[in-house]
Amino acid sequence: MMGLAPSFAAEATRWISGVHDAITDFFATADGRGTFREDRWERPGGGGGHSRVLTEGAVFEKAGVNRSAVAGPLEESMAGRLALQGGALEGATFFATGVSVVAHPRSPMVPTVHLNVRYFELTGSDGTVFDAWFGGGTDLTPTWPFPEDAAHFHQALATLCGRHGPALYPRYKAWCDDYFRNHHRDGEARGVGGVFFDHLRPGGDHGLGFEQLHAFVHDIGMSFPLAYGPIVARRRDLPWGERERRFQAFRRSRYAEFNLLHDRGTHFGIQSGARAESVLMSLPPEARWEYAPEFPSGSPEAALQSMLTPRDWLTMSH
Amino acid sequence: MMGLAPSFAAEATRWISGVHDAITDFFATADGRGTFREDRWERPGGGGGHSRVLTEGAVFEKAGVNRSAVAGPLEESMAGRLALQGGALEGATFFATGVSVVAHPRSPMVPTVHLNVRYFELTGSDGTVFDAWFGGGTDLTPTWPFPEDAAHFHQALATLCGRHGPALYPRYKAWCDDYFRNHHRDGEARGVGGVFFDHLRPGGDHGLGFEQLHAFVHDIGMSFPLAYGPIVARRRDLPWGERERRFQAFRRSRYAEFNLLHDRGTHFGIQSGARAESVLMSLPPEARWEYAPEFPSGSPEAALQSMLTPRDWLTMSH
Repeated sequence: MMGLAPSFAAEATRWISGVHDAITDFFATADGRGTFREDRWERPGGGGGHSRVLTEGAVFEKAGVNRSAVAGPLEESMAGRLALQGGALEGATFFATGVSVVAHPRSPMVPTVHLNVRYFELTGSDGTVFDAWFGGGTDLTPTWPFPEDAAHFHQALATLCGRHGPALYPRYKAWCDDYFRNHHRDGEARGVGGVFFDHLRPGGDHGLGFEQLHAFVHDIGMSFPLAYGPIVARRRDLPWGERERRFQAFRRSRYAEFNLLHDRGTHFGIQSGARAESVLMSLPPEARWEYAPEFPSGSPEAALQSMLTPRDWLTMSH
Repeated sequence: MMGLAPSFAAEATRWISGVHDAITDFFATADGRGTFREDRWERPGGGGGHSRVLTEGAVFEKAGVNRSAVAGPLEESMAGRLALQGGALEGATFFATGVSVVAHPRSPMVPTVHLNVRYFELTGSDGTVFDAWFGGGTDLTPTWPFPEDAAHFHQALATLCGRHGPALYPRYKAWCDDYFRNHHRDGEARGVGGVFFDHLRPGGDHGLGFEQLHAFVHDIGMSFPLAYGPIVARRRDLPWGERERRFQAFRRSRYAEFNLLHDRGTHFGIQSGARAESVLMSLPPEARWEYAPEFPSGSPEAALQSMLTPRDWLTMSH
């Protein structure tokens, strides 16, 4: 990783702080009523974070906007989760910073959304940065079936990604479909996907250099107004009742299952000693585990379930 | 494991089936209104299970009573979870049977209860059973603070265990306290404990032979009428309202976190290809993830939270 040493950590921390503020502003405006509470936490091993959470808003029942910047010796368990191996890691330290967002709207008509961008850096015992990468993504989890919302979300991301290279959207859309799945539920997707990527290093098959990668990941971090905002605007005032709310609580139980059973970010957060309330801010405010629910063919509930099989959403939007 | 070959599997399956029926009867009687739905499932790799679930009962919002008997080649991932290693396992097959119960009462005055008894057997490529053990336990998770209920539950288990040996209760009570903890929540216990044990083989430090172990674990499987029944009887008709119900939903979110993040039984079930609806029947019907809730000192909620630090409950009952 020539050109990286000594470290991009300070600049990445400032960058993430800016994205954090922009996303906070987006939700404050989109909600219109709720205000954010901020908690700062310190990690015993080094670093810490700022958790901002909006609860009981006009639109959002719970919206968590976290940022953190943590550093310390690279522990073996961490290396395992990162799928890193080798003697070079002995005596290494890690640095990680990122912003992580999950918003659970109150209305079942408005989809849940998740976004994360992050930067990771490894420094050897000689003080040289020997590896660094970006990761991130954003994905949409609707409760009520509006295929045109999924199409809009994907079209916005395809446009955004397209500005950085033609291969990015198809590749990271497929990665997202592959990642956000409840394998124990016959591979049912968490939602309708979006984009997801990890370990993006300069010189990878995306063809981007370090600065270009940074610009791409930054744009993902700033994608809410384009990709999610219009969906909130057109669904927030739709009526809904007990039935829709009950189905939302069921769908949220699947969201919780994914985050607790499968999500690498959750496991890394807990493993690295981050504050549990901040890591688990992604969990839904209210969830129901109904036993073996069934949805009559032709019902909106069945239609939503059928949207959880990955597909090409772009062809829908024409 | 002389004396075990060829196999205790057929007898264990009948035994578990009997315990399953007895527990089903216990809940049907204790509830008085609800009836059980039964689903049978088959595991692609061999074996299957019977899931019985009572929903919307008079006392129980959801009570799941599962039994299963599964067998097949011992996979590497399974050996890892079982903390087994070594070349002797090559070509080995496993057999596992057990009954697993979680009951979530509707009333926050009535505690949630869990029970599991199981038998596990490994057979080498030569057809000889080369290892076998029992496991199980039962533990109580109250929502509202009634220390005398925790004391009753522990006293009943201490009496039951005492019939099989003086060291069993203290040892397995401590094991339970150690196991049912949310490590990511500063080690907060799931509830007030009970007993838990695994890998009980004849000749272990408990001093019991195979038949004696079987008798002990059987008694644990039959402990509901003694340990849990009286608590249901004295709490089921107490009044409660919105506040108690809300705290119950919060406590249930911690229950879900434990089961999805830490429980070995859940992970083994999913890993071994059991039916997801059956494995996850333990999850609460309704849960709330509130952000960083705080409970005023002196409140019942704070009193319950303080009960989640392990202690000697026997000295309380005198």
